[in-house]
Amino acid sequence: MKDFLQERKTIRKYKKEHISQETLDYILKAGIRASNCGNMQLYSFIITKDEDKKKAYAPLHFNQPMVTQADVVVTVCADVNRFNHWCEINGADKSLNNFLFLNIATIDATIAAQAITTAAESKGLGVCWLGTVNYMADEISKFLNLPNGVVPVACLTIGVPDENPELTERLPLSAIVHNEEYKDYDDKAIKEMYKQIEENPTNIQYVKENNKENLAQVFSEIRYGRKGNEEFSKNYKEFINQNFLDKNCQL
Amino acid sequence: MKDFLQERKTIRKYKKEHISQETLDYILKAGIRASNCGNMQLYSFIITKDEDKKKAYAPLHFNQPMVTQADVVVTVCADVNRFNHWCEINGADKSLNNFLFLNIATIDATIAAQAITTAAESKGLGVCWLGTVNYMADEISKFLNLPNGVVPVACLTIGVPDENPELTERLPLSAIVHNEEYKDYDDKAIKEMYKQIEENPTNIQYVKENNKENLAQVFSEIRYGRKGNEEFSKNYKEFINQNFLDKNCQL
Repeated sequence: MKDFLQERKTIRKYKKEHISQETLDYILKAGIRASNCGNMQLYSFIITKDEDKKKAYAPLHFNQPMVTQADVVVTVCADVNRFNHWCEINGADKSLNNFLFLNIATIDATIAAQAITTAAESKGLGVCWLGTVNYMADEISKFLNLPNGVVPVACLTIGVPDENPELTERLPLSAIVHNEEYKDYDDKAIKEMYKQIEENPTNIQYVKENNKENLAQVFSEIRYGRKGNEEFSKNYKEFINQNFLDKNCQL
Repeated sequence: MKDFLQERKTIRKYKKEHISQETLDYILKAGIRASNCGNMQLYSFIITKDEDKKKAYAPLHFNQPMVTQADVVVTVCADVNRFNHWCEINGADKSLNNFLFLNIATIDATIAAQAITTAAESKGLGVCWLGTVNYMADEISKFLNLPNGVVPVACLTIGVPDENPELTERLPLSAIVHNEEYKDYDDKAIKEMYKQIEENPTNIQYVKENNKENLAQVFSEIRYGRKGNEEFSKNYKEFINQNFLDKNCQL
């Protein structure tokens, strides 16, 4: 049997098969069993299953086809709204609308999303994370009717796999792990650790198509270029200021 | 066999047994197999195993005993330093030191940390997440010798379990899940979903000990009170400004 923890792959193509409610509940329950700060469960899961809803949702994810093709789309949100409401009816202060708890709730929502991913994969389902959720937080918030205190953090498309791609390469473990303290890299170490990725024929082709000298330039100047990143950063900051942070805690 | 995805528990007490290097590598490899943005792998894992190092690290985690008792402590960091270095030697722009990529790298580091957690638990090991890493980012950064562009996001203590606690209660799945769009809660729904947690004898005792009227007040006014949260928010913001964000991208 394949080890689904060591050999997982992102799945972007799905069969037109439905996931049973029982399986979906199993997957989502794994999400709420994962660790979270003080057991406050500062997250919500928004399930998109309706075909028309998925069609309307797709443009907010740059029309990536996974949104309409997957049986289920799960948007995992950082959520202090529920907790705040509980405080309100108990005459308690609402103390979480600040940068610390934006970070903590983002982390807790991500933990839950990854637990959902693993549970889905353990059932033979395929999952794709859509990073677009971070770029389009404001628009997605409106689309999903998120109240103040709720921020979309992760978006997962889940379905029965209709592809079996090769395992994507990763940097060697030695490039990621530091013993006892961070040992910064010298040029030689960096060159060696990226060698395999740079020499991958798909990446060589990718550099050519983009008229760049090397893969690093394609990543940092085209795919994740400064101008776009700074614009999305500004949008995200504005969204957080308006929809999560107290007046005296603005970024 | 127990389903480790549905019945996982945080383990805070560990036997004095070592985790083999083979097992540790297995666990960490699961971390780097998980999804990440553009396969840029914007994370690093710092391993603390040395007894003296753990003793020195413990105060930065408010002296929680797990730090010294666990065989291994893994601090998972958001890391654009490695990627920036790769860009530098390739004459490429460094485009990730902004709020968008702080968020994305935080999420990717958390995904890896949760994948590490699940892999450890699949091997019968016990894990505890230390939220303190978010409160003490600056001090932890100095202790672990983190360069600019590296932010501690998650800290995991991992060891052979020496306890078997009860499954912690969670809000019912229906409280967390929203179908198609976010349905905000009315007072009655909030009261019902928190009922079981409020009636837990440990929590009733907890309210008494803290001289508060109810559990919500203990959480939002004592355990996670506004003053502390806002102070830690300010510290975290300063840390991020100095150690991650470009001059023109300051928060």
